Amino acid sequence: MSNRNNEEESSQSSTYVNNPHLKDMEEDVLYHLNLATSTHDLHEMFGDVKFVCVGGSPQRMKSFSEYIAGELGLADAEYPNICGGTDRYAMYKTGPVLSVSHGIGIPSMSVMLHELNKLLYHARCTDITMIRMGTSGGIGLEPGTVVVTKQAVDSRFQPRFKQTVLGKSVVWSTELDSELAEELLQYSKELPEFNTIIGNTMCTMDFYEGQARMDGSFCSFTEEDKKKYLDEAHTAGVRNIEMESSVFAAMCKRGNIPAAVVCVTLLDRLKGDQITCSPDVLHNYEKRPQGLVGLYIKKHEK
Amino acid sequence: MSNRNNEEESSQSSTYVNNPHLKDMEEDVLYHLNLATSTHDLHEMFGDVKFVCVGGSPQRMKSFSEYIAGELGLADAEYPNICGGTDRYAMYKTGPVLSVSHGIGIPSMSVMLHELNKLLYHARCTDITMIRMGTSGGIGLEPGTVVVTKQAVDSRFQPRFKQTVLGKSVVWSTELDSELAEELLQYSKELPEFNTIIGNTMCTMDFYEGQARMDGSFCSFTEEDKKKYLDEAHTAGVRNIEMESSVFAAMCKRGNIPAAVVCVTLLDRLKGDQITCSPDVLHNYEKRPQGLVGLYIKKHEK
Repeated sequence: MSNRNNEEESSQSSTYVNNPHLKDMEEDVLYHLNLATSTHDLHEMFGDVKFVCVGGSPQRMKSFSEYIAGELGLADAEYPNICGGTDRYAMYKTGPVLSVSHGIGIPSMSVMLHELNKLLYHARCTDITMIRMGTSGGIGLEPGTVVVTKQAVDSRFQPRFKQTVLGKSVVWSTELDSELAEELLQYSKELPEFNTIIGNTMCTMDFYEGQARMDGSFCSFTEEDKKKYLDEAHTAGVRNIEMESSVFAAMCKRGNIPAAVVCVTLLDRLKGDQITCSPDVLHNYEKRPQGLVGLYIKKHEK
Repeated sequence: MSNRNNEEESSQSSTYVNNPHLKDMEEDVLYHLNLATSTHDLHEMFGDVKFVCVGGSPQRMKSFSEYIAGELGLADAEYPNICGGTDRYAMYKTGPVLSVSHGIGIPSMSVMLHELNKLLYHARCTDITMIRMGTSGGIGLEPGTVVVTKQAVDSRFQPRFKQTVLGKSVVWSTELDSELAEELLQYSKELPEFNTIIGNTMCTMDFYEGQARMDGSFCSFTEEDKKKYLDEAHTAGVRNIEMESSVFAAMCKRGNIPAAVVCVTLLDRLKGDQITCSPDVLHNYEKRPQGLVGLYIKKHEK
């Protein structure tokens, strides 16, 4: 197992990508985004992007792009799904803001980010900030609380992302931009209708057994085992649990992109497993990370 | 690390699920499928299902449901997306055939299968067969070849699926139903317009570095490293690579469901990394697993 936390300091590093083979490719097909350097002028299409916002659900990213269009005074135009030729991911561009869906889980996020980072590289973008907005289970928090991630930790509460390359384990740091997190927390004071905190976010490979839920198809542990594990997580500073933050943090760090993770909690896992809030409440909760990230973009947009 | 390959032999096992807590739940919300026992009569809706077909793309599963409706003489009705209230997964039912999308990667498949297995349990289904249809990268095969999986192996070519529960590793067998695989191979002889073989399928956590691709955002190995790894995979019997087979095999086995994985290869990874085939060719390739699985269903449907 090797530690490559210092990849960005190597002599071959460049912004967004670190792959010496890319420059020799005549064409680059971003297969899952349905884009390619031979068929699309990526610089023309994306060169002015400054903020990249990602989230699990295609529909939620569409809503966010419409919301941000309104906030930026760009609501008088149509913003079609740029990846309309595929149903793997959805992408919307409104001014300097790119909104992209990533599906559920680390591998789905990883495929999208490999292609998104290459898109930013081919488009010769500069000064990109990337933010994941999502939903999560909280630990000891009132449902609806927004958590800005301090550290993305694994199921053993360590700030690391373990990947397998050519059958061997490689470990990456999941460090996020602490100034960006602090800035988001400051702006949250302008949104007093919900609570925002900074805390660690645990990233798991599974929604049920992997998050100590007892309501999946399979469960082989007891209520006491579960309580002990979630208490240990809380002691380690974990305030919410989701399924993509670690690979997001690791890949943004590898690509030298300042990044943040902003997730709302849908329930308190110390009190239950099932998500039973009504569609209206859920919809209201989902808009909270979008509101905070929208505020950040408005303050930074020139 | 404990080995629980014999879970299904334990006294608590039942078909599709193995969770003693489920029977005590007043309501079960299948959150990501937008279904619940309190709002839907799952037995009425799904009690007659016999064949469950899953695949990554929502659109592809819609196409499959339309194809199978034609094959079974059921094309005169409309088959709406049963999970229309969410964009996480899509589900179509045509007679005894349920078609469900699972997104990209192990976690996305795992969330869907936890809820699908509970759906089958609540619906009191019997004699279910489950088949994953997908796309993959081939090793030493002509593009367009269909691979019926013998063993789903991990990136070290072992037939196992490693999961983390309460911070501890648990390993599951990824054994698939060998009779079902053999039967699919036999039926493939009636479809001579493409080649079908049986081989091992490697399941990875990432499409780029995890599959020894050199065209991702990041790459830190050489062409020789890559060739050596893919050659080792071929020697271990691996004929194709995808991202969901191991958790699919493990969870079907835990739920006592006979299961198969049928994937078409889109390229030969010994010759390249990029998927450059035209949309028409791709569309033709994607229909091949559907054709073989459709033939299987027609022969078994009463």
